[in-house]
Amino acid sequence: MVKSGDRVVLYGEDGKKFIVKVESGGKKGTHLGVIEFDEIIGKEFGDIVTIGKTQKSYYILPPTYIDDVFSMKRKTQIIYPKDSSYILMKLDIKPGTRVIETGVGSGAMCAAMARLVSENGKVYAYERREEFYNLALNNLTEWGLADRVELRLKDISMGFDHSNVDALLLDVPDPENYIHLCWEALGGGGRLGVICPTVNQVSAVLEKLYEYPFINVEVWESLMRQYKPYPNRLRPVDRMVAHTTFMIFARKVNKFLPTQMDQQDESQVIEQNGQNENLKIE
Amino acid sequence: MVKSGDRVVLYGEDGKKFIVKVESGGKKGTHLGVIEFDEIIGKEFGDIVTIGKTQKSYYILPPTYIDDVFSMKRKTQIIYPKDSSYILMKLDIKPGTRVIETGVGSGAMCAAMARLVSENGKVYAYERREEFYNLALNNLTEWGLADRVELRLKDISMGFDHSNVDALLLDVPDPENYIHLCWEALGGGGRLGVICPTVNQVSAVLEKLYEYPFINVEVWESLMRQYKPYPNRLRPVDRMVAHTTFMIFARKVNKFLPTQMDQQDESQVIEQNGQNENLKIE
Amino acid sequence: MVKSGDRVVLYGEDGKKFIVKVESGGKKGTHLGVIEFDEIIGKEFGDIVTIGKTQKSYYILPPTYIDDVFSMKRKTQIIYPKDSSYILMKLDIKPGTRVIETGVGSGAMCAAMARLVSENGKVYAYERREEFYNLALNNLTEWGLADRVELRLKDISMGFDHSNVDALLLDVPDPENYIHLCWEALGGGGRLGVICPTVNQVSAVLEKLYEYPFINVEVWESLMRQYKPYPNRLRPVDRMVAHTTFMIFARKVNKFLPTQMDQQDESQVIEQNGQNENLKIE
Amino acid sequence: MVKSGDRVVLYGEDGKKFIVKVESGGKKGTHLGVIEFDEIIGKEFGDIVTIGKTQKSYYILPPTYIDDVFSMKRKTQIIYPKDSSYILMKLDIKPGTRVIETGVGSGAMCAAMARLVSENGKVYAYERREEFYNLALNNLTEWGLADRVELRLKDISMGFDHSNVDALLLDVPDPENYIHLCWEALGGGGRLGVICPTVNQVSAVLEKLYEYPFINVEVWESLMRQYKPYPNRLRPVDRMVAHTTFMIFARKVNKFLPTQMDQQDESQVIEQNGQNENLKIE
Repeated sequence: MVKSGDRVVLYGEDGKKFIVKVESGGKKGTHLGVIEFDEIIGKEFGDIVTIGKTQKSYYILPPTYIDDVFSMKRKTQIIYPKDSSYILMKLDIKPGTRVIETGVGSGAMCAAMARLVSENGKVYAYERREEFYNLALNNLTEWGLADRVELRLKDISMGFDHSNVDALLLDVPDPENYIHLCWEALGGGGRLGVICPTVNQVSAVLEKLYEYPFINVEVWESLMRQYKPYPNRLRPVDRMVAHTTFMIFARKVNKFLPTQMDQQDESQVIEQNGQNENLKIE
Repeated sequence: MVKSGDRVVLYGEDGKKFIVKVESGGKKGTHLGVIEFDEIIGKEFGDIVTIGKTQKSYYILPPTYIDDVFSMKRKTQIIYPKDSSYILMKLDIKPGTRVIETGVGSGAMCAAMARLVSENGKVYAYERREEFYNLALNNLTEWGLADRVELRLKDISMGFDHSNVDALLLDVPDPENYIHLCWEALGGGGRLGVICPTVNQVSAVLEKLYEYPFINVEVWESLMRQYKPYPNRLRPVDRMVAHTTFMIFARKVNKFLPTQMDQQDESQVIEQNGQNENLKIE
Repeated sequence: MVKSGDRVVLYGEDGKKFIVKVESGGKKGTHLGVIEFDEIIGKEFGDIVTIGKTQKSYYILPPTYIDDVFSMKRKTQIIYPKDSSYILMKLDIKPGTRVIETGVGSGAMCAAMARLVSENGKVYAYERREEFYNLALNNLTEWGLADRVELRLKDISMGFDHSNVDALLLDVPDPENYIHLCWEALGGGGRLGVICPTVNQVSAVLEKLYEYPFINVEVWESLMRQYKPYPNRLRPVDRMVAHTTFMIFARKVNKFLPTQMDQQDESQVIEQNGQNENLKIE
Repeated sequence: MVKSGDRVVLYGEDGKKFIVKVESGGKKGTHLGVIEFDEIIGKEFGDIVTIGKTQKSYYILPPTYIDDVFSMKRKTQIIYPKDSSYILMKLDIKPGTRVIETGVGSGAMCAAMARLVSENGKVYAYERREEFYNLALNNLTEWGLADRVELRLKDISMGFDHSNVDALLLDVPDPENYIHLCWEALGGGGRLGVICPTVNQVSAVLEKLYEYPFINVEVWESLMRQYKPYPNRLRPVDRMVAHTTFMIFARKVNKFLPTQMDQQDESQVIEQNGQNENLKIE
């Protein structure tokens, strides 16, 4: 049942959605008419509400992370769900995880992590620009996640304040300059993720990564394609997102067993790809 | 520090990994020689251990979900990380979520969910084949996740025992036959995911979905491509996974505002794609 | 050197192109000003011409097939270069080839074939709608290819007038209804290509194909991705074409050695893919 | 009808193919038994021949370019059909075209061009290694294409002997070192294609390209995906080719209207992509 204070998605017949926080007695003027919140409060999720004078009907849904991200206030490019979902898995974010994220931007990725780390984990989030720091703080507060995030207004070129973290996501314009700081902040076996929109950045980061004890270095890109959901005329959509970012992953070790990257042949690279492994000591 | 009872990844210079559970005083014979667990216990994650007579060195790492999945005992095709990560996000699995999963198979997807729902959530897992039920139970126990999963040996054609769940993942050979049961088990606004390797199954499921109050129907496929991580010879790998499954997502509503799917033009389908939305009521 | 009667591409600094046929003494009014053709005639290809009062400069280029296709008059969806190029190769269109094409639409694919078959080959093109027949005839005449094409205003449900052709491209809304006619029109070993935007059409065509002596049945789709050509910020473009059509290819044989398609395992399908073969009798 | 001297594909029930040249009275021993050529000569293409003691049956087909390429003797990586087909279209190879190709390797791309340029066109092919020169010459002779190719044993660092060509394909390990020679050899408006397996090479070539009067610079990659052709279980194959090469295309102009590449915004790049254009002066 929808209660006062809940955030709800209003989902129209045309597939358009928007999110409102319904406070008892409140209302919100929209181009569709005035939404009286008391008409929503007390309804069940999945029910229908009809808005004011336009009499347009909306389904009432609980917001998912994707709903939140696409309705949030933002001033920056966000990490797309196709990428953020894979990052969460590669960085192994789960209840109890302690993870550093930087830069924070509008706070979308920070929220994705904060939702999963639960009360006994923590997201240490660094943002150097006050404007984004404030925006992210507002968004995280709106989503009820602020208590799981330690948000710092700080330039990471001066180093991270936290150490021995389980995972670290580096999403800054010049990631190659902070690889050594990432190594220092991570605990042994910790997972590093780096966001690189261009291939030149990927090269620069890889070069730095091999200077420090990082292993299991992988570079990935994700292409998600949607289909037109017509049973009798099923086909992919006409246009799709061609690129958002490359993702680099690696794991910190405490010191290096020298492996000569240049001697690795391709089969080794393939082996390093977890998706092709089915290795079992038995 | 590695303690007795911990599961650890041993990661070789050649990129090969395997997982062992280290018990104080124990040992394990492998084709590489005998691993004395006491040589691992007490070391830090990220340290190096050298095994027996072959003197091969291994990094000691904490296992991630992907490590677990690729070293587990399995008798079935598993859902790949590229897909399971996106499913977790679309189904909005997080601490506290109550989710149904079926069929369970070897338990990999069940584990992915159980890790995230935390103690205050629950995975209700249905498997009709005793062989897989036992395998999944063993795997979940091995991973310490059995207490978050209510695993049932049951054919779902007789209906689900749980209702009002937040999310439901249907991964069976004939998903089109259970759509009505999924609708019944889901709470209002709940998220449905369906696994369909063939386009024929996608069509069959879509047809059924439109008979029940489901909205926001989306069909996706994920293509992940890895790169050879050489800074000066950066390029995609030669071969990649071309296909694993299509993924269908939808949300349950309590009753239907009739929308004529056949009248939806493509722009609406595109709108329904969260990745293209930036809708804000202001 | 550009001569009177030549068709030339005018390519602007902004990457925009258009095509004009320059006749001695002629001119053309455009939103850019009046182009006096005598200012172009006598120049070399690769030179620059500056147009009228706007003083905008354009490079003078000889039109390629792709230039032609994207500047032609059209009333129909065309087959994209990413697909038409592959079709030309799979159907093995070259000087001397005799090929049937239907439906003709605006004539783009017909032209692609006509350019290659040369004077000693022929394109037999069938179009049932007079409007498109006339449009295609105009386009082919404009491109100087009409003499290599035998264009018929005819509904193919009444059968093809030509037989023993080397190749046949079927691009109609209901291709599954004409497979037997294609078999009849093709010579032994002849190549069939079928255009199918939806997966349902692919299934329907495949079912029909297996009823007639066709072998080497392949289904393909092409994803071409462009990069932003910046040396120091190299990355894929943001959006790409996600889908145009599936392409089915097969070869006619005179009678069938019954092979049980359902018994084919995947490795055989892979073998059938020429791209994985390197078979040599030695 | 198959005549003495013809090359034919023998296509088995298992999808395996091989090519033989049938000479009257000749025979060939294979692991399948002895093929008596006179049993093939006189048959129609599309007919069946049964070989020697194994009594295995084969369809007799005329070889296509793809058949040839995958049964040729080769000592080098070849350009895949998915790429070569697009290159032929972007370089606008057709009867009458004069085109330079280098390096020749095993001669596969050279043959693809030679088939299309017809008697009144010409392929000028440069290869610096005698071993490959001889191999390519043999292959081209075998295919009956040697008279359309002027094959030179020559290192192109000393320059091309031909000029004013319509098109040029550069497929060497260090393409960035020959861009100026390509510019010199091309006629005005001529099409350049460059093969670059790594992103580093793409960057290096782009940098050089902008130093010379080349316009319409495009970088492409092609992902072709095949489907398992089962009507009722239609789905993509499990594995696919992830990468072969990037392809760079550009057109030579005689001098440069300075455009500042760094100022080009993305919309211009998109515009430059022929696939998105529909420009018409009217």
